[in-house]
Amino acid sequence: MDAIREVERYLDNHRDELLEALKELLSIPSISALSEHRGDVRRAAEWIAHRLTSAGFEHVELMETGGHPLVYADWLHAEGKPTVLVYGHYDVQPVDPLELWTSPPFTPTIRDHQLYARGASDDKGPTFLHIAVLSAMLKVHGELPVNVKFCIEGEEEIGSAHLHAFLEQTRDQFAADLILISDTTMVGPNQPAVVYGLRGLAAAQIDVRTAASDLHSGLYGGAVPNAARAVAEIVASFHRPDGSVAVEGFYDRVRPLTEAEREEFAKLGHEEEALKQALALSDLWGEPGYTALERMCARPTLEVNGIWGGFQGEGTKTVIPCEAHAKLTCRLVPDQDPQEILDLVEQHVQRHAPKGAKVTFIRQDGGRPYVAPYDHPALQLAASAYEHAYGTKAVFTRMGGSIPVVETFSQLLKIPVVMMGFSLNDENFHAPNEHFSLDNFDKGLRTLAYYYHELPSAWNQH
Amino acid sequence: MDAIREVERYLDNHRDELLEALKELLSIPSISALSEHRGDVRRAAEWIAHRLTSAGFEHVELMETGGHPLVYADWLHAEGKPTVLVYGHYDVQPVDPLELWTSPPFTPTIRDHQLYARGASDDKGPTFLHIAVLSAMLKVHGELPVNVKFCIEGEEEIGSAHLHAFLEQTRDQFAADLILISDTTMVGPNQPAVVYGLRGLAAAQIDVRTAASDLHSGLYGGAVPNAARAVAEIVASFHRPDGSVAVEGFYDRVRPLTEAEREEFAKLGHEEEALKQALALSDLWGEPGYTALERMCARPTLEVNGIWGGFQGEGTKTVIPCEAHAKLTCRLVPDQDPQEILDLVEQHVQRHAPKGAKVTFIRQDGGRPYVAPYDHPALQLAASAYEHAYGTKAVFTRMGGSIPVVETFSQLLKIPVVMMGFSLNDENFHAPNEHFSLDNFDKGLRTLAYYYHELPSAWNQH
Repeated sequence: MDAIREVERYLDNHRDELLEALKELLSIPSISALSEHRGDVRRAAEWIAHRLTSAGFEHVELMETGGHPLVYADWLHAEGKPTVLVYGHYDVQPVDPLELWTSPPFTPTIRDHQLYARGASDDKGPTFLHIAVLSAMLKVHGELPVNVKFCIEGEEEIGSAHLHAFLEQTRDQFAADLILISDTTMVGPNQPAVVYGLRGLAAAQIDVRTAASDLHSGLYGGAVPNAARAVAEIVASFHRPDGSVAVEGFYDRVRPLTEAEREEFAKLGHEEEALKQALALSDLWGEPGYTALERMCARPTLEVNGIWGGFQGEGTKTVIPCEAHAKLTCRLVPDQDPQEILDLVEQHVQRHAPKGAKVTFIRQDGGRPYVAPYDHPALQLAASAYEHAYGTKAVFTRMGGSIPVVETFSQLLKIPVVMMGFSLNDENFHAPNEHFSLDNFDKGLRTLAYYYHELPSAWNQH
Repeated sequence: MDAIREVERYLDNHRDELLEALKELLSIPSISALSEHRGDVRRAAEWIAHRLTSAGFEHVELMETGGHPLVYADWLHAEGKPTVLVYGHYDVQPVDPLELWTSPPFTPTIRDHQLYARGASDDKGPTFLHIAVLSAMLKVHGELPVNVKFCIEGEEEIGSAHLHAFLEQTRDQFAADLILISDTTMVGPNQPAVVYGLRGLAAAQIDVRTAASDLHSGLYGGAVPNAARAVAEIVASFHRPDGSVAVEGFYDRVRPLTEAEREEFAKLGHEEEALKQALALSDLWGEPGYTALERMCARPTLEVNGIWGGFQGEGTKTVIPCEAHAKLTCRLVPDQDPQEILDLVEQHVQRHAPKGAKVTFIRQDGGRPYVAPYDHPALQLAASAYEHAYGTKAVFTRMGGSIPVVETFSQLLKIPVVMMGFSLNDENFHAPNEHFSLDNFDKGLRTLAYYYHELPSAWNQH
């Protein structure tokens, strides 16, 4: 354990310097969605590349993906030890509405033991923890306990647009034994969580047309189809009155939750009353037989994201809409397949299209669900590392959201993905006043130092 | 009959002059909805007032209603004869999109035996026919066969905003035996129609709220209510699968169609296939047991005019909408009451609000349905007058639309309303290239000359 303590001491002694370095990175407005920030995005990539080079990493490169560059670097001299692929992203979300920020988004500011800046918690802060810990290890010991490859991308906030195709062509370069990602959230301020599953996604738009043009309800009302009513009937048909999805075959491939998984969820002590109050809900809603947390994290769902047709202005317009639309996304769990689910939804839509309604079904994004074997030693070690730093037992959980890159890695590299995050759900990523807890900054450094140090021996049990 | 022939001869001899006069009126852009045309609206009122004064009408006045002025004039020297209140409107709809007009909207132009101009058929043309005929009668005979009052308003296209309150205060001045309005349409080019019924209107908006803000479908999907789904369920609940309205009590006060009425509708020879083709419908729709024409004209209906909630942009946004909305209007028939219908719809909405959805029901416009006794001699005479001019038997019909002023007159003055129009459904009122058939201009003059001349003797059978 002396080896870890030395690294921890180094990190403690250089804490101010590390925080200043993170502030430097946070002050670069690397907004990937806005073309006027293209130069800033590259500048952030160059900052990371320079930092990794200075620390002693090798083969440092800005790889051209077709979009914003990806930062690659490696250190591969731990012969016979596992290779960790560290994924993170240096691009950030846009900042509007700017007037709601207390301090400017690219002027990193510490208030109340929180570091405020766009990207602080998503994902420059957590990504920086890996760079800082591994650099400290190289500095202190002149070597690393494991082999490491960095894959820090610049397009996560725009859907990792080029990553999948790029990794398909370059997969040999990224070959590793496991992937480590810090881009998920903890359960609460002192409750770390190892995320071992993510839901998949299947999205579609429904276009309904009933006539060549809108019709006057005085002249034709009562005799012709109405597209707004038709789309409402289709949308209303997606769920049974009890809240379960009525699409035939929707649940067929769903892998049932194990008793062990349900026990883990139960341990989280999720408060349904608190959720209702926090979101100002009069009632929860959804599939019977599961807790709200299970429904949010580990059960598939179909949500209407938007519906529109006809007149939306003030007052009255006596029109019979000739077209109407709905957008929907399904969140998927193993072993549902996005394309198969879209097939089932499309069949359902066509079967439930009312008389006189021509329905077009447009397929949009899709992503497979992901579940890691949570008894894998690389995942169990994550829990031990958290416990070392936080003094709290970590929970294993699945998340309701989708991180397409996880499925990409899993599919292309066929290795486990370990998700250990240091952000909190209320840290306003994607919103004004994004911030990152300095407590998690400090404990994150210790967690990762422990993880990297202990990985070789944990791996041997594999 | 010599008296009529003299008037007809006068109208024939002065046809060009009359057309030029109508073109003058049509060249004034009296768009009531646009404040920059306020002066033009008044100019049109003044043009009519001046025309009526020159013709020998008395008490000519621009009455201030609180909005655009109303033109009043009378001739009340036909002692012992009925008094006709002639209603029309001199305001017109806006003209955009201007680029779709073949000739400028306020440069009246004759092409293919049609007079093109904004307001030509709605309603300056038909209103002018009354002025022309009655002026000709005064000129030829020095007197009229009946007493006449004019009520030509300037706010019909903006919902007759001030008329009801104004007439309530001034009803004595407008006292009459019947009201004559030419602001409806004929069934076809040579098929005149006496409109004896109009549907009423009851409008409302439904606002659904489920949470304080939109929620991320990855985090919360499957566990919380969705406002877009909730509004769809409410909208879908309004109709039974067979197309009838499912709101409890909705049909309770509906006066059944008589056999005679159904025979009149059947005589119209309405082609359902032709309707489907004209509107590009794959199917008709609606309440079983009635023809499409009966459903459009004489049965009540509930139509959704608009629906909206959540994301309407390109691509995917994984949001659970926290609010959603729908607008609806009911078309009503005797003896349905707009307020009572809104009560029933509101009860239905609250009963069908899904769990977790807070629903607000906002009442909007309402208007009572109107049906005249179509065996009244003033209505029967209208059919004879049409037949005299067109050589075709007129049909009696009810119209699906609502003309709030008809209900206002009926309610305040408690006298029959005779609706005999000269416009055709395809004459583009409210659209670019509005036009009025010169054939109906000529036959309209003859129809009205006959009507006014014969009214006293028809009235005696009353």
